[in-house]
Amino acid sequence: VTFTKVSILGPGLLGGSLALALRRNFPQVRVSVWARREEAAREVCGRGMADEATTDLKTAVAGADLVILCVPIGVMEGVAAQIKPHLERHAVVTDVGSVKAPVVDALVAGLGTQFIGSHPMAGSEQVGLDAARADLFDGAVCIVTPDEKADPARIEAVGKFWSALGCRVATLSPAEHDEVVALISHLPHLVAATLVNLVCARNPDAFHFCGTGFRDTTRVASGPPEMWAEILDGNRRAMAKSVESLIQMLREVEQQLHNTGAVRDFLANAKEQRDKITTRN
Amino acid sequence: VTFTKVSILGPGLLGGSLALALRRNFPQVRVSVWARREEAAREVCGRGMADEATTDLKTAVAGADLVILCVPIGVMEGVAAQIKPHLERHAVVTDVGSVKAPVVDALVAGLGTQFIGSHPMAGSEQVGLDAARADLFDGAVCIVTPDEKADPARIEAVGKFWSALGCRVATLSPAEHDEVVALISHLPHLVAATLVNLVCARNPDAFHFCGTGFRDTTRVASGPPEMWAEILDGNRRAMAKSVESLIQMLREVEQQLHNTGAVRDFLANAKEQRDKITTRN
Repeated sequence: VTFTKVSILGPGLLGGSLALALRRNFPQVRVSVWARREEAAREVCGRGMADEATTDLKTAVAGADLVILCVPIGVMEGVAAQIKPHLERHAVVTDVGSVKAPVVDALVAGLGTQFIGSHPMAGSEQVGLDAARADLFDGAVCIVTPDEKADPARIEAVGKFWSALGCRVATLSPAEHDEVVALISHLPHLVAATLVNLVCARNPDAFHFCGTGFRDTTRVASGPPEMWAEILDGNRRAMAKSVESLIQMLREVEQQLHNTGAVRDFLANAKEQRDKITTRN
Repeated sequence: VTFTKVSILGPGLLGGSLALALRRNFPQVRVSVWARREEAAREVCGRGMADEATTDLKTAVAGADLVILCVPIGVMEGVAAQIKPHLERHAVVTDVGSVKAPVVDALVAGLGTQFIGSHPMAGSEQVGLDAARADLFDGAVCIVTPDEKADPARIEAVGKFWSALGCRVATLSPAEHDEVVALISHLPHLVAATLVNLVCARNPDAFHFCGTGFRDTTRVASGPPEMWAEILDGNRRAMAKSVESLIQMLREVEQQLHNTGAVRDFLANAKEQRDKITTRN
């Protein structure tokens, strides 16, 4: 990468992992981490994860070629407004938010063509700096989501950055991104939580009998509720469509449960598709 | 265990793993494996998994104190009818089927009090002898499902057998069992397959963007379609109730997607319950 200073705003699982990955892959790049809380900044320093850790946004972004917003999507707009006066003119700003249309709309409105959205699809049900790992992005898909007026040079720079960190980079419009992740991430998350809450409501004793299937199927339900409530709200339009399609498909198969041939074909199709998914992330 | 000969009917993932686990834990017990196909019997022999491997049911159950049906649930009744004339009087017959009410009804009708149903909740999306593992049952829950008229001595013998293999044993009526597994196993299975088929129907390109969340949430959809179609058919009454409850709960949360407080509480409850699930199996 051609960046000399990268500024990471927010030292959570993703921000912390970014700092570690930059350290590992590009020791020559100066890494600055901004944290809201003094203790968090001290912890980043104490762990030697960055060259600079600060609670001052101006210090964090000063001289940075690349600024990465790793804060909750609900506060991105506010943080963007605060950094705007201090950004280098040539700087590129990106983010790691899981919803793109509302984030890109708000940040392009705030930062203009300096902002290019991205969504590295890495993470786990864990949160915070303690869960940060240098290899979190290895082999992960990162979706870069420029809007129509985005600067081609900055789109390219952001894509190259994620590639250099080990991601497989794809480009989608913000709206396409939100439709895709509703299907493959947000809906599965909501369904996992619903499966757990259903057992809870119908027969909590059944939790004693859970096997590996239930455990894996519902793992993501251990994710941070606050963050996921924001994501589901941010993507509520695509979510409503996905939930409706899911309900319709469940009803169709429910009416066929006695028809083992039809159910077998339904399950065989799912198996065929599922067996193809071999990605590490 | 006080058994001198155990007969395993059907050398699939569960039957094969049972043979291996018996070998490991109780080398003094004589293990006989019945297979429908000659090659399968030869393979069991070749791997040294049993003292005897045969395609003759009479030979397999002759002298056996315990007979374990590890065949698909659709053929259990037929196999039971064939072994009945050859069973020792004191023998206990059990099975490993994932649905219990119809299986227990049919096998008690066929074998009387010699039959005690059980369901070791172990397995994976893999199938067949190649996937068999001596430790498959270590720490797994096994639900023993006697009907009202079941012989207390045989209930105890079956429970002790699974305990000796390393299972945590619980007892439920066949109907209770079926309600519980509909919630924690059969519904999650159907939902996993539906999530995959939904992506397939709505936007197959989205498969390229799958992360660990989708992978784990849908892992069970790689299970054997034929077996699962039989299971879902066998448990269709409890399944219909579970699917309806799931749809109702999904609709409720869908209508609240804009209400981040309500969604956060919903997700927080799921997280609290999910975090408690620590079982290995």
